Amino acid sequence: MSSGTKPLLLYTAATPNGRKVTVFLEELKVAYGTGVVDYDVENLNISQNTQKEPWFIKLNPNGRIPVLVDRARDNFVVFETAAILIYLQQFYDKDNKFGFDKDSEPNDYSETLQWIFFAHGGVGPMQGQANHFNKFAPEKIPYAQKRYTDETKRLYGVLNIRLEERDWLAGPGKGKYSIADINVLPWVRIHGFSGIETLDEFPHVKAWVARAGERPGFQAGIVV
Amino acid sequence: MSSGTKPLLLYTAATPNGRKVTVFLEELKVAYGTGVVDYDVENLNISQNTQKEPWFIKLNPNGRIPVLVDRARDNFVVFETAAILIYLQQFYDKDNKFGFDKDSEPNDYSETLQWIFFAHGGVGPMQGQANHFNKFAPEKIPYAQKRYTDETKRLYGVLNIRLEERDWLAGPGKGKYSIADINVLPWVRIHGFSGIETLDEFPHVKAWVARAGERPGFQAGIVV
Repeated sequence: MSSGTKPLLLYTAATPNGRKVTVFLEELKVAYGTGVVDYDVENLNISQNTQKEPWFIKLNPNGRIPVLVDRARDNFVVFETAAILIYLQQFYDKDNKFGFDKDSEPNDYSETLQWIFFAHGGVGPMQGQANHFNKFAPEKIPYAQKRYTDETKRLYGVLNIRLEERDWLAGPGKGKYSIADINVLPWVRIHGFSGIETLDEFPHVKAWVARAGERPGFQAGIVV
Repeated sequence: MSSGTKPLLLYTAATPNGRKVTVFLEELKVAYGTGVVDYDVENLNISQNTQKEPWFIKLNPNGRIPVLVDRARDNFVVFETAAILIYLQQFYDKDNKFGFDKDSEPNDYSETLQWIFFAHGGVGPMQGQANHFNKFAPEKIPYAQKRYTDETKRLYGVLNIRLEERDWLAGPGKGKYSIADINVLPWVRIHGFSGIETLDEFPHVKAWVARAGERPGFQAGIVV
């Protein structure tokens, strides 16, 4: 089912979760070069439920993209987007350019995880529900549309508080661009699709999205 | 707002997320003794939205329990349940009785994270929505009730696949009881409240819940 021979193989699709991983891989390429980080992409047709086929369920019993296979480490399989980012950061970001060392920078490591979990349990699932009820549900259910649009806005408001005096979510001072940011930016970027027309209510979030958008790695990864 | 002088202070409430942390703290007490792990509990009245008051927002801008303050480490604050478990595992489980070493056991460490993220982005938020629409929503919305009850069952089915030939979610062989299990068991335990009357469809999940329920630390933590 897989093609190519590069060290990493990514099963993915053009969704916010898929893009988190391609953004990070492209950032790693910019930072370290393709000699260190190179990957094949296998696009799955999620509208035809390819990710629910038995061969894919063996890789990820949850039947979801993205899934990473590390051919350079005995075909070790990683599923769950955030776990993929943390795995890549451990093995392919040896200088901790996009993260923090668990032992020597434990507080920054923990803060990175705190913001990753905030996004993974909050922004992702809630904005995903907003998408469902605003765009895909077979019936219009105003109560659910309002519930999830409001909750997504509330979560953006939390990010806005965090970013009030910083450039990036984790790290000392103004922060360091890290997997904490990469893990949530691809969701916030598509706010319009989710029924939140503008980020004007969240000026610090808006500036942060623009700041990331200037990065060549981010630009390359968001369109893979 | 806080009382007591023990090394750890936990702001919490009697919810599945709150219980994950008290279960782990009680397991640590059983494993290491109260000389190593001791904590004060500050119960928040979440029905009166105490967790949205300004003093608490300073601790967690998301306004949610649980929040851990580590008085022994300069009052370092940790929010997001799963980040608290990982933090406690790093600093208070020095023998890795409930987890794996990131450097020497990187694959087990990653698998632990994969199952933690699976629960944190899946079981928690989806079962939470099932609770909302089955118990709390002001209107009956059959579409949403079915959507979230079905999705919770699907996620239990994924756990059932994983547990088919193992005792615990992460670790070599049959696995080792770890924060991966502690992070999801308190949700699965209350399946009845969420509209899933029985676990008979998920025999391996049912056996796993019973297995955890025999542990003194689990029993003590689930009622704190």
